[in-house]
Parts: sequence; C-alpha cells; structure tokens
Amino acid sequence: MGGGAEFDAIRRMLETWGAKARGIGDDAAVLDIPAGERLVVSTDASVEDVHFRRPWLSAMEIGARATSAALSDLAAMAATPRGLLLAMAVPPDWRGELEDIARGVGRSAERAQCPIVGGNISSSSVLSLTITVLGSTEHPLHRDRARDGDIIFVTGMLGGPQAAVAAFMAGRVPGPDYRARFASPTARVREARWLADRGAHAAIDISDGLLADAAHVAVASNVTLDVDADAVPRMDGVSVEDALVGGEEYELLVSAPPSAAIDVDAFQREFGIPLTAIGVVTLAGAPSVTTNGTRAAAARGHDHLG
Amino acid sequence: MGGGAEFDAIRRMLETWGAKARGIGDDAAVLDIPAGERLVVSTDASVEDVHFRRPWLSAMEIGARATSAALSDLAAMAATPRGLLLAMAVPPDWRGELEDIARGVGRSAERAQCPIVGGNISSSSVLSLTITVLGSTEHPLHRDRARDGDIIFVTGMLGGPQAAVAAFMAGRVPGPDYRARFASPTARVREARWLADRGAHAAIDISDGLLADAAHVAVASNVTLDVDADAVPRMDGVSVEDALVGGEEYELLVSAPPSAAIDVDAFQREFGIPLTAIGVVTLAGAPSVTTNGTRAAAARGHDHLG
Repeated sequence: MGGGAEFDAIRRMLETWGAKARGIGDDAAVLDIPAGERLVVSTDASVEDVHFRRPWLSAMEIGARATSAALSDLAAMAATPRGLLLAMAVPPDWRGELEDIARGVGRSAERAQCPIVGGNISSSSVLSLTITVLGSTEHPLHRDRARDGDIIFVTGMLGGPQAAVAAFMAGRVPGPDYRARFASPTARVREARWLADRGAHAAIDISDGLLADAAHVAVASNVTLDVDADAVPRMDGVSVEDALVGGEEYELLVSAPPSAAIDVDAFQREFGIPLTAIGVVTLAGAPSVTTNGTRAAAARGHDHLG
Repeated sequence: MGGGAEFDAIRRMLETWGAKARGIGDDAAVLDIPAGERLVVSTDASVEDVHFRRPWLSAMEIGARATSAALSDLAAMAATPRGLLLAMAVPPDWRGELEDIARGVGRSAERAQCPIVGGNISSSSVLSLTITVLGSTEHPLHRDRARDGDIIFVTGMLGGPQAAVAAFMAGRVPGPDYRARFASPTARVREARWLADRGAHAAIDISDGLLADAAHVAVASNVTLDVDADAVPRMDGVSVEDALVGGEEYELLVSAPPSAAIDVDAFQREFGIPLTAIGVVTLAGAPSVTTNGTRAAAARGHDHLG
C-alpha cells in the first residue's frame, strides 16, 4: 500500500475505533499484565477464499468474525483479553471497505472488552486479517489436563457454521440462524472464566470440529473421550454426523471433574446458551475418542474451504 | 491448506526449530513476563511482491528478514524479546520452501534470543509472514520523549537496502554489501538496551527512512530534529539523499541528552557497528526536521515497492 495511502488508512481505522484503540503510535505497544497473572497469546489468520468468500459476508462481518475467531483462543485458555493487534493485507478493490472491516473488528473487541493496541497494514493481492490476541490469567486451562472420570461439556448448539458453508458452496442462501453462527460467532470468553472458576480441568475451542478437537485433548492428556453422540447439542436440522465434524464453531469443549460445581442451568441463565454434558473421560484404549462406545474414525482437521 | 497438509507443515517447522520453539500445543501460548517489567508487543507483515520479490531472496532469507524486521520494533522500545508468533499464508508453489523459511525465522529469533511460542498457517495465493513479537522492559523507550538539547544518534551505515532494491528493480545484481543489508538485517536489540541503559530518551527504528522516521519523532515529541546531512553515515557509493530517505534499514535513530554516558567508541567496540551523532534536538519551528538547517521536504512514508 505504501506511504500516504497507508497512513491515511491507519488514520481512518483509528477514527473508527475511537476509544477502543489505545497506546498506538510507537513502534510497539506497551501493556501491563496484572501481577501474578501469566501472559496468554495466540495469533490467527482469516484469509479470503480460504476462510470465507467475499459474497458470503459483509465487510463488517469479516472483521467481526476474524476477531472473534482469534479471541476464541483466549477463551480456550480461560484468559481475560488484554489487547489485540490487527495485521491486514489489503488488495486495491478492498480499500473502500477498510472502515467497515475495522468497525467489525471493533465490535467483537468491544464485546470481549479487549482494547486494540497495535497493527500493521500492507497491500496484497488477497485480503487477509491476522489477529494476535493477548490475555492473562493466574491459571490458564490447557488441553492436556483432562483426567479419568472427568465429565465432558460443550457450550452452545453445534452445526450452524457447517450448514451455512454447505449452503453457500451449493449457491443457496443459508438459513438465518445457520448464517449467524458462521458470520457472527462469539468468543466464549466469559463462559470460559465461569467454567475455570468452578473447577474445569481442560478446554479447547471447537475450530477444527468436535471430534477433531476432542482428539487433540485425548492425545495431549493421554485419555479417551467417550462422547455420547446423541447428547451433542445440535441446531434444528443438523445431523449428528455434521454436529460431530463441523468446524469453526468457536464453542468450547471442556473437561471437568464430577466434583466441580458446574450447574448447567445456572450457565444457561447466565449466558443464554446451553452447557451440555456429552460424555466422560476414561483411560480405556487411550488416547482416543469414542462415540457411543465405538472408536471414532481417525479425527482429521477441518479443511476450511478445501 | 487444511487438515493433514496443515498439521504436517506445522510438524516439519517445529522439527526445524527444535528447542527454539517452546510451549506450542495449546490454543494459545503462556509466557511469564518478569515482575516489574512491562509487556511490549508489535506485529509486522512481510508480503511477497510488496516487501520483496521471489527472485531476490532465498527462502531462508525471507524468513530471517521478516523476523528481524519484526524484532526491530522491540529494539526501538529497548525491550528484551520474550517470544514471537509466526502467522504464515502459503501458496501451493511455496510449500516446498516451508522448512527453509522456518530455518530463517529460527536463525533471526535465535540471534535475538527470542523463543518461538506460537503460530498459524493457512493457504493463500500470495506468500506472507506476519510476525508478532513480545518483549518486556522496565522502562520502554518511546518516540515522544526527544527533548530540547538532545543529541541525535544513528546506528550502523545507511543506504544499503535502498541501493539493493534499486539494483533488483533495474534487473541488476546488487553489490554483496548492499544485498546483505537488504536480505539479512539485524534487529538492534542489544544495541538499544545498551543505549537505554546509558540514558537515551527516545528511539525509533528506521523502517520508513531516516527523514520520515525523524519526522515521526519530531511530531510525537513536538521538537525539531536538526540533522547534519553530511554526518549521516553512508555505505560506500550511497548518496546523501539516498541515505536520508531509504527505508527498511532497521537501524535505530536515538535521542539522548548530552549528559548521557554514550561513548561512540565503546559502542563500536561492543557491537562492531558505528554509532554516529548526526544532529541535535531544538524547539525552533517545532515540530519539524531540518537538514543542514533547512526544513526538509515533507517527510513521507517509505513506499515499499510502490
């Protein structure tokens, strides 16, 4: 992009963000992490024609979705967001959409109470948003802490993003509920802290699909996750199979001991989404994932758009 | 990239890095910032055909250069590197080069004693490396702290990257010294801490060109930087003009009071590169940059490849 256009783009984005952006101006941003807390950091990219196609989403949704996807990695660690950095590569025919993309980034950042602390903009032949999120917590959740006897929970209702992408790919208009789940995911930041505060052992966000992410937990923790497939909460019209393998959910898979004070009704009242027990952790045949007692086919990563 | 290819690429990069990569496996990385220090963070992108062209650099140089460019933002704050995250977007015809790119990233990270703590990989139609660097320090340098009476210093010898790009663009082979400055910059991390420890007030890295970055300091600090153009250290064969405007130097422009114990000979002995006093900070006509007492043309950002 270079010179004048670059500075002008940055100025317009900062104007869009207003007080949501902080401390921008130096070569790097300075943040204070509360004493006693550990820094948690992750980076995530959203690339046109890989993670989305232009006709599917508004510019604001592209910004909001990329930001929530990145923040979801902080949720998986039960960290409180402290700041995000946005690196954008922008083709010429996207330059008119910069403020709307920024508005979407700001919306998701604000919802997670996460200030925007830095960024970078350059030209490219393909639109991409690379978002780095910084958070902190005294006790991060990890995917290697699932233990024998734990109960496995999942937040929300699965299958929407997969159903929306399938409709888009077939040239159809997805149902509005499916579309919203794809276009406007929410990072489960507060939900994760609620669960961690009540004794959850391990968590992962469902970005690759429930079975694939369950397999990550199983391997990291050297346990078996025995999932009751019929218990997996699905949106209306979603098959069990699709709920098990659909990616980009940005819901949480959580493992917690029976002694944890996790009240699913209280969760539903607090957050307006369900928390559902979908299985148990065992040591039989570890590491693996079983559904209804049968070893699930080798879990593979979500393929984005192939 | 998706599924299997993505995990395979990550595995190969982790093997390349060995002990240089740490704590990778969760949704996010966990870092500890020393008590009493502030977190310093920046993100920087290196995009094919914007920041470099494929025939100009080896895959290893692309990785090393992008990493040093990002680390240079920590140097500008005099922060000690604590970790970096690499987000790569990789076209199909670059997949065979991933390990060499990773090797270059590892080389620059190791030189700055910076562990690789996370990353992300996706497919794209254009190669890009977005690198987020995390550092810490008790007292970060800022660009708004230049004060009346300060002496302005610059590290190293300028003009090499600009001369190399000019040769590349003209279809010529740049001289090896010019090429090395473009292809293999070093982030001045240790140099910055040495200067900060001795009382430097303000710093910025010369990524946009000496005059443009001096203007950033002038505006932020509301001062005038009066630069003695003839004193600006230049590589052999580089004009004064080119040394003043050439970008992507990743050297430091530093402002320090006369009382600071900055011994340029000791600097040269310690780091093997010169430290040169090139001007003074005044309040006359602030904010502005003057060269040889004349107001410099309005500084503009470096235009990458236009």
